[in-house]
Amino acid sequence: MIRTYDEYKAQAEQALIPMLSSLGEIPEKLKQAMVYSLEAGGKRLRPVMLLAACEMAGGQADTALPFACALEMIHTYSLIHDDLPAMDNDDLRRGKPTSHKAFGENIAILAGDGLLNAAAEVMAKAAVRIGDLRGIRAMEIIMRHAGVTGMIAGQTMDVISEGKTPDKTLLTYIHTHKTADLLEAAVEAGLALAGANDREIDIGREYALHLGLAFQMTDDLLDVTGDAAVMGKNTHADENKMTWIALKGIEGTRSDAEEQVRLAGEALDRLAWDTAFFREIADNMLQRKQ
Amino acid sequence: MIRTYDEYKAQAEQALIPMLSSLGEIPEKLKQAMVYSLEAGGKRLRPVMLLAACEMAGGQADTALPFACALEMIHTYSLIHDDLPAMDNDDLRRGKPTSHKAFGENIAILAGDGLLNAAAEVMAKAAVRIGDLRGIRAMEIIMRHAGVTGMIAGQTMDVISEGKTPDKTLLTYIHTHKTADLLEAAVEAGLALAGANDREIDIGREYALHLGLAFQMTDDLLDVTGDAAVMGKNTHADENKMTWIALKGIEGTRSDAEEQVRLAGEALDRLAWDTAFFREIADNMLQRKQ
Repeated sequence: MIRTYDEYKAQAEQALIPMLSSLGEIPEKLKQAMVYSLEAGGKRLRPVMLLAACEMAGGQADTALPFACALEMIHTYSLIHDDLPAMDNDDLRRGKPTSHKAFGENIAILAGDGLLNAAAEVMAKAAVRIGDLRGIRAMEIIMRHAGVTGMIAGQTMDVISEGKTPDKTLLTYIHTHKTADLLEAAVEAGLALAGANDREIDIGREYALHLGLAFQMTDDLLDVTGDAAVMGKNTHADENKMTWIALKGIEGTRSDAEEQVRLAGEALDRLAWDTAFFREIADNMLQRKQ
Repeated sequence: MIRTYDEYKAQAEQALIPMLSSLGEIPEKLKQAMVYSLEAGGKRLRPVMLLAACEMAGGQADTALPFACALEMIHTYSLIHDDLPAMDNDDLRRGKPTSHKAFGENIAILAGDGLLNAAAEVMAKAAVRIGDLRGIRAMEIIMRHAGVTGMIAGQTMDVISEGKTPDKTLLTYIHTHKTADLLEAAVEAGLALAGANDREIDIGREYALHLGLAFQMTDDLLDVTGDAAVMGKNTHADENKMTWIALKGIEGTRSDAEEQVRLAGEALDRLAWDTAFFREIADNMLQRKQ
């Protein structure tokens, strides 16, 4: 039984800090920095999608909750490290000073490492509790999409491609891995925890890939056309970066994003469950304001 | 059947890069940076101890190998991030330029993140293959000791305590977590993979804790009395740091290290297996040259 976006969001947000605290005694300053970034908010798209995918396929959200929180920890660590002076050098994130601005660069590095490690720890503990292979499969899916053939691969190509001539193959690689991979992880892990079969999991992945590409295209649009006050971060921050806009212009990017949303919907058509929740997420992507 | 230190070391070293490559296609520069640090060598103490603990307790080294490699990846990532300008700002490690000197700070951050993530991924894949709870338990042990109540906690207290008056409680906390935790992980995970019981695993942990404290004390001694050429890193690098020497002097540190080695041996006396391998590691600790 699928619930609303806000219900899943509230469930994930309520569990996030207790899940971290359950790991044991964490040095005060390190914990403050991790909590600061975890509480900075955002849409919580990844944990929401993981919980909803699990319930869509007949699983229990309670079983999926540690994995949803772990995925948000991974997303959060990637933002902290992404903002570091040696990376994107951003001072502002979701309307607040970035981690290294608030806590110093050394603590920001450790808080990022800590969140990535905590994510794996939370999932390993949950997998021991679940006691069968579903938990460990979900964990394998999430770590793979987050890792050196997934999100970190995208991140690497993004930083080493700054200032280069836009190239469609390379940019698609960056968007696929930097952005779509964690969305794929959300849907695939949620389905795996519900006991879905490989074919269903693969269709879920396909949906999330197209959603992720649409997400990154609308992100590039917002960086040019968006309102910094609404977004809580600096716009025009991507001027040195390879973006879809540099490749296709504003109108071309908009129409490519629409095409990706259409393809995401086509994937959903091939699933036997009630997919309205995920269809709405895809449709809303084109109306993003932040 | 326990083999020699060099055999375990060779087994771990041969598996390390193939284990990383087995994850799939990694961007060239990222992979280069990860391989560079993994191949920088060192004693491979953690993977050797994990493999030997598993075989001492009647397990198979082949089953333990992915976990041994994962532990070395975690150790390696911690060195890369530890050396960063915002952390210890070291230029030299094991006689080679540190990662950020060789590849730039952004790639060094990503290579560290990548190795931590790869460790969890390698273990999750291995746990799926093993198919029962031993793998996932070993993974939980390793991630816990590496994490925000373990190694990262020690690392945090180390960086925020620089320049402060030496304090025995705080310094014991730092040494316990920064150094001993990954050795505890090695022994505990090796034993867990062999199916040892909780009492045996806890005695193994106790041994590794004392070994770790002795290790850190001899490390502090080497920083003052060691030969930079033999060690492959700068000596007197810890002058701003809280060390055991600042607390107890050179002779006091030496005698405290001897006491820790004695306690490590006492823990081994309570195990029914042939513990000669681990006794030798502890005894050799007092003769360290690097």
